[in-house]
Amino acid sequence: MKILITGGAGFVGALLAHKLLEREHLDGQPINELVLADLVPPAADLLADARVRALTGALIAQCAGLRGESFDMVFHLAGALSAECEADFDLGMRSNLDSTRALLEALRAAGNTPRLIFASSLAVYGPDPGLPLPAVIREDTLPTPQSSYGAQKFICEQLVADYTRKGFVDGRNARLVTVVVRPGGPSGAASSFLSGIVREPLKGEFAVCPVPPETRVALASPARTIAGLIAVSEASRDVWGGRIALNLPALTVSVGQMLDALEAVGGTQARALVQFEPDAEITRIVGGWPAVFDNSRAARLGLEPDPDFLSIIRAYLADYPREKQIH
Amino acid sequence: MKILITGGAGFVGALLAHKLLEREHLDGQPINELVLADLVPPAADLLADARVRALTGALIAQCAGLRGESFDMVFHLAGALSAECEADFDLGMRSNLDSTRALLEALRAAGNTPRLIFASSLAVYGPDPGLPLPAVIREDTLPTPQSSYGAQKFICEQLVADYTRKGFVDGRNARLVTVVVRPGGPSGAASSFLSGIVREPLKGEFAVCPVPPETRVALASPARTIAGLIAVSEASRDVWGGRIALNLPALTVSVGQMLDALEAVGGTQARALVQFEPDAEITRIVGGWPAVFDNSRAARLGLEPDPDFLSIIRAYLADYPREKQIH
Repeated sequence: MKILITGGAGFVGALLAHKLLEREHLDGQPINELVLADLVPPAADLLADARVRALTGALIAQCAGLRGESFDMVFHLAGALSAECEADFDLGMRSNLDSTRALLEALRAAGNTPRLIFASSLAVYGPDPGLPLPAVIREDTLPTPQSSYGAQKFICEQLVADYTRKGFVDGRNARLVTVVVRPGGPSGAASSFLSGIVREPLKGEFAVCPVPPETRVALASPARTIAGLIAVSEASRDVWGGRIALNLPALTVSVGQMLDALEAVGGTQARALVQFEPDAEITRIVGGWPAVFDNSRAARLGLEPDPDFLSIIRAYLADYPREKQIH
Repeated sequence: MKILITGGAGFVGALLAHKLLEREHLDGQPINELVLADLVPPAADLLADARVRALTGALIAQCAGLRGESFDMVFHLAGALSAECEADFDLGMRSNLDSTRALLEALRAAGNTPRLIFASSLAVYGPDPGLPLPAVIREDTLPTPQSSYGAQKFICEQLVADYTRKGFVDGRNARLVTVVVRPGGPSGAASSFLSGIVREPLKGEFAVCPVPPETRVALASPARTIAGLIAVSEASRDVWGGRIALNLPALTVSVGQMLDALEAVGGTQARALVQFEPDAEITRIVGGWPAVFDNSRAARLGLEPDPDFLSIIRAYLADYPREKQIH
């Protein structure tokens, strides 16, 4: 089996690559080749694996070359992030919409109807002035994106669905919720602070929280996110069911509850490092995303949300022990 | 007021142009200039009006030129039709998606936030394998397009909504139902026969009906369709409400009921001219469109569906007396 991961050098892409290499198989087939496409090369440990090939550069420029390759499975994770797309409309249209369309055209040209998992986002949802969000989001809830990132993701879902209907690809749209705790530094995502308010205090550093503590958010640990992408890639067409996007499982917590868990792990001194500095734009975007999902369709694929935020922090500390310095 | 109609030489575009010229005003402003953009020039009577200017050629090629113009109001009706888009995927992507995006970019570049009425379609709806259509369609029903035409229209709605949110245009998405009775000949729409099975028999000619008589369809007369587009263009932002697409009012009838009305006007000899020859692809596309809509939002804009199909035929005969030859 030959697999392509776009955004393969990013946090989620690299985790997925590691997991696939460790599994050695996907959907009952041995993994012979894993192509990691991204703006930058993947980490050295990934590159050292004989099955890994790097494709470095802008995805949209590489799609002409991809036409000559036949992938069995494609995880399309590449894209500009939410705050970036809101600040630079043209960047988002190019990096999310145009790149996805170019990828779809390349996969169509290859002619082998590869399976394609498109990483969409809960950001497709938001409260339209003409239609408030329901209390609980289901897969048949009408998305009304309130950010360009969300609009671009929702448009790409429609492209994936129609390319699938036409038989050009075997596409599945999976909507990720916010992945926490991410190691490293802040990103261009409006939700970046949701990792920062845990990661930075555990290192003894200040962190800014731009939304009020009562803000509720929908989260998943990196491990559950990867498990979700793999389950989507291995689901039979019957179990998957139609061409409607799937909402991956979400743990619903308030920012205040996140800080309670931080305090349980890092003590009051860790919590005291989080400073509330309201940011209207971040509050509008992140506060507009829904936090409560009906995850029954994901459950039929064997996927469950993380049990609580404490377990997410503990898993982070186990996976990245050097990130924690004060405890 | 300077108005642009794309698809301005088409049936609906030309009717709208005539109506606007006759009204002389729109949204309280005098109409000084009416630009009709289409692949072919508009009819001579429209061109003879001093307020009319023709822009002839492919819309996508003209959009660079449109960047230098400031329109107050744009009716975007141009596009490839449903059966054409299903037969030629690339044509649909270019004529519907790329052209609409180029138009949006031109209007954004003009910098005056023009009001834009985008003619979407009930074809955004269809029964997905994973989600059957509800009995009654409302504006918050999730569209799951089952044709490339429907997918492209739904994608364009998302673009119009986000360009509106960003303040680049003041856009409104209005979903048209099938417009009958159209004069002239067949078109590239999968629904073309819905005019043909009335128009042809009234001229003493055979007509083929590719769907079973029990098929229910959602229809509007040309006059109600034009009234709908004008009401949408004149609605205040408050009355319009948010960025969700509006379903224009629909009369629900079965094909059998349409033929009952044909017989009431043209006699049994007219009805006998309609031959049922099932076409699986047309039945899939047209039979997949919903037929029953909750039109309460349209009613708040003062819009009602046609009262019955007999009145639609009578209006057609009054408007196009020379089309009727056997009665």
